[in-house]
Amino acid sequence: MKVSEMGEFGLIDLLAKMIPDSKVNRPVIGIGDDAAAWRSESSLQLATVDTLVQGVHFSLETITWKELGWKSLAINLSDIAAMGGVPQYALVALALPEDTEVADVTLLYEGMIELAGRFDVAIIGGNISRSPAVSITVTVLGGSLNGEVLRRSAARPGDKIAVTGYPGSAAAGLEMLSQDLQFGVEMSTYLRSAFTRPRPRIAEGQLLLKEGVKAAIDTSDGLLADLRHVCEASGVAAKINTNLLPIHPAVARGFGERARELALSGGEDYELLFTGKAEIVERIRAKMEYPVTVIGEITSGKPGEISLLDVDGSPVKIENTGWKHF
Amino acid sequence: MKVSEMGEFGLIDLLAKMIPDSKVNRPVIGIGDDAAAWRSESSLQLATVDTLVQGVHFSLETITWKELGWKSLAINLSDIAAMGGVPQYALVALALPEDTEVADVTLLYEGMIELAGRFDVAIIGGNISRSPAVSITVTVLGGSLNGEVLRRSAARPGDKIAVTGYPGSAAAGLEMLSQDLQFGVEMSTYLRSAFTRPRPRIAEGQLLLKEGVKAAIDTSDGLLADLRHVCEASGVAAKINTNLLPIHPAVARGFGERARELALSGGEDYELLFTGKAEIVERIRAKMEYPVTVIGEITSGKPGEISLLDVDGSPVKIENTGWKHF
Repeated sequence: MKVSEMGEFGLIDLLAKMIPDSKVNRPVIGIGDDAAAWRSESSLQLATVDTLVQGVHFSLETITWKELGWKSLAINLSDIAAMGGVPQYALVALALPEDTEVADVTLLYEGMIELAGRFDVAIIGGNISRSPAVSITVTVLGGSLNGEVLRRSAARPGDKIAVTGYPGSAAAGLEMLSQDLQFGVEMSTYLRSAFTRPRPRIAEGQLLLKEGVKAAIDTSDGLLADLRHVCEASGVAAKINTNLLPIHPAVARGFGERARELALSGGEDYELLFTGKAEIVERIRAKMEYPVTVIGEITSGKPGEISLLDVDGSPVKIENTGWKHF
Repeated sequence: MKVSEMGEFGLIDLLAKMIPDSKVNRPVIGIGDDAAAWRSESSLQLATVDTLVQGVHFSLETITWKELGWKSLAINLSDIAAMGGVPQYALVALALPEDTEVADVTLLYEGMIELAGRFDVAIIGGNISRSPAVSITVTVLGGSLNGEVLRRSAARPGDKIAVTGYPGSAAAGLEMLSQDLQFGVEMSTYLRSAFTRPRPRIAEGQLLLKEGVKAAIDTSDGLLADLRHVCEASGVAAKINTNLLPIHPAVARGFGERARELALSGGEDYELLFTGKAEIVERIRAKMEYPVTVIGEITSGKPGEISLLDVDGSPVKIENTGWKHF
């Protein structure tokens, strides 16, 4: 059945029934009123919004509806992770062509609900519109653990720069999918998942905050572009030792010499990039189960300027420095 | 200059600089970090999201960019009004074709900022994406006055049904604009404004709550369709005396016999439709500066069923009963 046959209200009813009750976050008013309402015990409220647009951020030829549901929520949870916060509620604004299959929309919701369940996030509202292309705008609301947050503007000269996971994996995955590159099962599973099912680093963000880190961002635009956001907001510069970049074996094997460029400039990894004193970063490396790698240092140079150094300390040039939205 | 020439980050910077500080609602972290953060003193948080899509909800041939900015925020503030709440913060997700003029986007923001200022709403974040068509998704966050809210599900048999303002005015305005109907200056100004610059009934919603009203909705889908939402959510029926419908003189003069149909079925008025005991509704009529009209009564009939009665009590048939999104 097409969404045009079911109608807006029928579709809203169907989707609302799919959403399980959260044991942790129970709204006072969920889907079905003019606005959602909930009681919050957090002194500091957090909110973020992000959109995925068909033909710009995704193609239904390379991502499944279920993966798309997961990803559309994940990219927002990742913003809460980058604040060290606790995600609690989500609002979902869907724009759908009228010939969209209802079954596909339920798959989208399945993917979203699966991820929401992992972090006790309750979907409490939203909106459905007709539109020439599919677009999914998710708002995530949350709170801070202790009234504090990680900020882009808190990097200080002398801080170590560290990143979680393996930057460049999502861009490698996108390249594999869009160019139909053929790899072994294990390798292609990793690369596909890196692009289509990013894992928001919620627990990791909270650990950073607890251990005394002040500055963080999630890597959505690409490591270099996001580091530049931090440096500009903090009024500092940075140097990166490119030989320290943690490259996943699947990316190294599949993309050879281009792996480093993907790690620096590939977007959509949704890992955490953070800075902090060496001893704090070391303590986090020891405590975090997920990999953390120190890749450089904050300096007092020209605000926003990033120097890339090769293994011998000589400067590296790189062309493409981030995902452009226009 | 086109937005593609300015780039996403340049455009965000430009728009962020346009936003004045709110004297009432000051975020801890506004535009420019991964998420926005604010302290809330309200025990009950409210959130709503709504989207306007080019070619579906608006045409740039009949609405200016500035009006569009106003309206995209207004429709969300109206949802908070329908809860009796206090709007505080807004997040704006814009999707724009790459050849959109930067000047037009700043006009859009001017309209939004003008309305935000009237209610001390602070724009604290958002997102800009490329897209084949313009779409604007606004999330509004707020709080409740006293830990209570107006609900769709609280209408009870015997309640009077009342509506603020003049339903059908927005639909009449849309018809005038899209069919290029020619009226006098005063009349066309009223009709245009009804469609392009709806006034969210924030103070009115709060008054309803204070005076003891429990059930309300805003009229976005059309009076009949929205009354049906209330009846379904409350498990009640309703009868409407169509001769009591408050028709604005401009609609009566311009649309004659069709005025009643526009009042019942025309969408996008963003007035408040509410129910309550006769004495409460009378008290509100006396206190509210803005017009309130009793148009019928909640009954204990089949849930969701609405009877339309003519001046002599005979049943009225009407074809079109609400705005369909697909």
